[in-house]
Amino acid sequence: MNAKIETFQNPKPNRKYLITHIHPEFTSVCPITGLPDFATITIKYIPDGLCIELKSLKYYFLEFRNKGIFYEAVTNLILDELVDACQPLEMEVITEWSFRGGIRSVIEAKYEK
Amino acid sequence: MNAKIETFQNPKPNRKYLITHIHPEFTSVCPITGLPDFATITIKYIPDGLCIELKSLKYYFLEFRNKGIFYEAVTNLILDELVDACQPLEMEVITEWSFRGGIRSVIEAKYEK
Amino acid sequence: MNAKIETFQNPKPNRKYLITHIHPEFTSVCPITGLPDFATITIKYIPDGLCIELKSLKYYFLEFRNKGIFYEAVTNLILDELVDACQPLEMEVITEWSFRGGIRSVIEAKYEK
Amino acid sequence: MNAKIETFQNPKPNRKYLITHIHPEFTSVCPITGLPDFATITIKYIPDGLCIELKSLKYYFLEFRNKGIFYEAVTNLILDELVDACQPLEMEVITEWSFRGGIRSVIEAKYEK
Amino acid sequence: MNAKIETFQNPKPNRKYLITHIHPEFTSVCPITGLPDFATITIKYIPDGLCIELKSLKYYFLEFRNKGIFYEAVTNLILDELVDACQPLEMEVITEWSFRGGIRSVIEAKYEK
Amino acid sequence: MNAKIETFQNPKPNRKYLITHIHPEFTSVCPITGLPDFATITIKYIPDGLCIELKSLKYYFLEFRNKGIFYEAVTNLILDELVDACQPLEMEVITEWSFRGGIRSVIEAKYEK
Amino acid sequence: MNAKIETFQNPKPNRKYLITHIHPEFTSVCPITGLPDFATITIKYIPDGLCIELKSLKYYFLEFRNKGIFYEAVTNLILDELVDACQPLEMEVITEWSFRGGIRSVIEAKYEK
Amino acid sequence: MNAKIETFQNPKPNRKYLITHIHPEFTSVCPITGLPDFATITIKYIPDGLCIELKSLKYYFLEFRNKGIFYEAVTNLILDELVDACQPLEMEVITEWSFRGGIRSVIEAKYEK
Amino acid sequence: MNAKIETFQNPKPNRKYLITHIHPEFTSVCPITGLPDFATITIKYIPDGLCIELKSLKYYFLEFRNKGIFYEAVTNLILDELVDACQPLEMEVITEWSFRGGIRSVIEAKYEK
Amino acid sequence: MNAKIETFQNPKPNRKYLITHIHPEFTSVCPITGLPDFATITIKYIPDGLCIELKSLKYYFLEFRNKGIFYEAVTNLILDELVDACQPLEMEVITEWSFRGGIRSVIEAKYEK
Repeated sequence: MNAKIETFQNPKPNRKYLITHIHPEFTSVCPITGLPDFATITIKYIPDGLCIELKSLKYYFLEFRNKGIFYEAVTNLILDELVDACQPLEMEVITEWSFRGGIRSVIEAKYEK
Repeated sequence: MNAKIETFQNPKPNRKYLITHIHPEFTSVCPITGLPDFATITIKYIPDGLCIELKSLKYYFLEFRNKGIFYEAVTNLILDELVDACQPLEMEVITEWSFRGGIRSVIEAKYEK
Repeated sequence: MNAKIETFQNPKPNRKYLITHIHPEFTSVCPITGLPDFATITIKYIPDGLCIELKSLKYYFLEFRNKGIFYEAVTNLILDELVDACQPLEMEVITEWSFRGGIRSVIEAKYEK
Repeated sequence: MNAKIETFQNPKPNRKYLITHIHPEFTSVCPITGLPDFATITIKYIPDGLCIELKSLKYYFLEFRNKGIFYEAVTNLILDELVDACQPLEMEVITEWSFRGGIRSVIEAKYEK
Repeated sequence: MNAKIETFQNPKPNRKYLITHIHPEFTSVCPITGLPDFATITIKYIPDGLCIELKSLKYYFLEFRNKGIFYEAVTNLILDELVDACQPLEMEVITEWSFRGGIRSVIEAKYEK
Repeated sequence: MNAKIETFQNPKPNRKYLITHIHPEFTSVCPITGLPDFATITIKYIPDGLCIELKSLKYYFLEFRNKGIFYEAVTNLILDELVDACQPLEMEVITEWSFRGGIRSVIEAKYEK
Repeated sequence: MNAKIETFQNPKPNRKYLITHIHPEFTSVCPITGLPDFATITIKYIPDGLCIELKSLKYYFLEFRNKGIFYEAVTNLILDELVDACQPLEMEVITEWSFRGGIRSVIEAKYEK
Repeated sequence: MNAKIETFQNPKPNRKYLITHIHPEFTSVCPITGLPDFATITIKYIPDGLCIELKSLKYYFLEFRNKGIFYEAVTNLILDELVDACQPLEMEVITEWSFRGGIRSVIEAKYEK
Repeated sequence: MNAKIETFQNPKPNRKYLITHIHPEFTSVCPITGLPDFATITIKYIPDGLCIELKSLKYYFLEFRNKGIFYEAVTNLILDELVDACQPLEMEVITEWSFRGGIRSVIEAKYEK
Repeated sequence: MNAKIETFQNPKPNRKYLITHIHPEFTSVCPITGLPDFATITIKYIPDGLCIELKSLKYYFLEFRNKGIFYEAVTNLILDELVDACQPLEMEVITEWSFRGGIRSVIEAKYEK
């Protein structure tokens, strides 16, 4: 994606602690039907040297608004790109999608350094 | 069953991640009374090479609508057929049934490769 | 429909009182897509001489399981047929449908003698 | 019923005020199947000269434990017997029954002097 | 009671507006068994010239902690004493009691000038 | 908007009954910041000769996805356009928006023939 | 007890899976006061060769309706009798009782082969 | 207060419709103890010619952060100042305060042109 | 305390099972302010030879009603006295207190033989 | 910070038990925008020789009201300062922040002696 994830120095780099960001307003587009998908995205990570800056995270999520991509692919892509951006000790991305055809889905992917 | 479970290539085969599909509109028929049963079905799996395609999963569930089958049997049958279809690393099927005679039931079955 | 609504004598015909029956397991079929629809049906009525017998009501609802009919039509049809069957002073039928295409619907129809 | 509803003098007879008693442990027996029914019973009344004593109300409800009686009949019977016992300005009895055959029922009956 | 309800000048005496105070920690004693009763007390009133001061209201409620009094009597007593103290245009007292013998009770009393 | 609202003949034109459609996946764009807004939209109407077809309603809502428009304006616009499309006896549009700057908003507009 | 627990052949004997039955309508009698007790009973088990038939389980629970027995005793008795009936690999019985004297109780007992 | 409430032209001045803004992050200071108070503030109004601009409303609420003022006074003051700012047909201000001394309070004030 | 905890013989001494008693009506007094404190108390234990009799437990809790004692002290005292009374294999006492000064507290203490 | 955390002697120093304090009224200021942030703060600790006195904890939290500080920094600062004050065996600080820009955040930091 084009929107750059900004980071800032972890204020307590010698302690392993957990940061969680929850965004219930994620939307992308189904690549088959062209119809919008909606999800709550949860990012959980243990920072190493860098923390994710929240405003840039909001703009990063916004880039998916008109992008066609499957549930499984977008979850793994966000995990890869956020790991790239802040090099955390651990990170987990959870995407919870609204009902489509009577089925709702949740995808959970984890990274460990 | 006749409806074929379609699959697609796992977009991140080198990462163990969890996919959950929840379907609160499952219905089959009690083989003794001929009366309908209703359940929420949850499928949780860690894909290996293949992911389950959602539209075909919906049509697969639909095949049970007028089929007579017990709670324990249908839960294990769905697990067996979905494992056959996508060969996951792990899979769990949970069926939560509505009240019958003042009792509600939940069946949980797991598979590990 | 073929299933007959059975009735019994109102045990307190000289008092206007309210009877409510709630059935969260109603299912019919979309006449366009052939896919199942699911609803919670609520019947509220003030009996005159007759009350609706519950077991026959269950079998009446069951007749819609494989019938293609729209939300608005089925709500009004059930109201008409139950009014015919028990001739109440007042009756209301409320159908609350599960999500289809990101939209859930509720239909509410009333009859007064 | 044999259990007598006890009453006590209304401590504020010149004010119209509302008393509500809610009992979620009511049980009687279906006269057709012989199987138990369960209900939450709510009694709402505006006392005139007398208030209902709670311990006697508990024993009154207990008398229905092994008695065969329909939803509509028991609701109206309780209303009649409690009105007889305390002669209120207004009284309402609401019975909310648990699921039987996928249907749950509520009966609401009112009395005004 | 001995604890005096303090009041202060209504800051907007020319407007009819509604003040609600909710106290879930009321406790008194059953005059028959000597066992404690527990209630949530809600005071709703439209002030005329005076508003009830909250700290004095807390101490007023505290006076009932070891006092034996029935549900119906305490509700009407509080209404009478608070009306005396602040002379409101309208006042309502609602007491919601916890379960005793499988029954929970609510008493609602209103005053209008 | 370009997406046409389709209608179908009201199956019970001689009865005044209420139809409600609830869509929790509405999104438009803030005309000042260019950032997305999210809302649950509820349409309630009493049909006259025509009912709103659900699939076309979904596509109609979709047209707002990348359109800049204020809360108050979009609520009134949807009401005007749906009234135009199906000429109901009465219609109400309710839009419930997610938090922006610590404030969440609800707009409710009604039409009567 | 006299009511026989019926069983049927486990349809998937080579897989360890979990069956849960939840019954919120259990009632027995306090052996000291003679007053009824109410509980939600949950049975969780991993079947070996046999599964518990639901209708017979309902009639088994019914036998306690007028039987005087303590919370701790009835929980252990049900566990013993159900283990006897179906010889499971593991079983747990949980009884959750309604308030008595301001206290509610839960008893949890487990069996492993 | 110093922060000016901005307004914009009502986009549908010929229709009486309802606008609600809910702000759960209001805080002011108790004038007696100097300790902070917390409230959810709800503004409901029917606009005439002008609507309240949301960003200026946020800054208006912020001015109370370190101001000492009683519940009843602040509710009426906000109503007066917002009525002044946008001259609505009707307006209601509801403030719901968190627990202080075991009591929580709600103040509701209305204006009609 | 003066109220004696009564016990009875464990009906299943050869099985380790868990008993939980939950009492939401506990009240004691703050030793500094003299104002009442309110808590839900949960007792969880695995009995050895003796079980706690419920009525005596109720009277035991009642002894704290007018006693001044801190959260941490009362939690540990109850654990010590109940362990003394019934000599369990394990016991846990959890006290959950209502808000005081905008803070609510929970204390959890465990004993193992 | 200037407000001193007061402590008192742990009344049960030889038992490892858990104390939790939950404060839903924390507010600080965003150092970038100058706008207020709101959080629920949870402090969980196993005391060694000293317990935290609640009133001083309330005043300690109050010192952040007009202080500009980031989520991650304030969470770690509070943990460090409370550990300094009472030297616990273990402590955890959890801060749950309200929505900003469609994202809500939770920070969890732990200390072990």
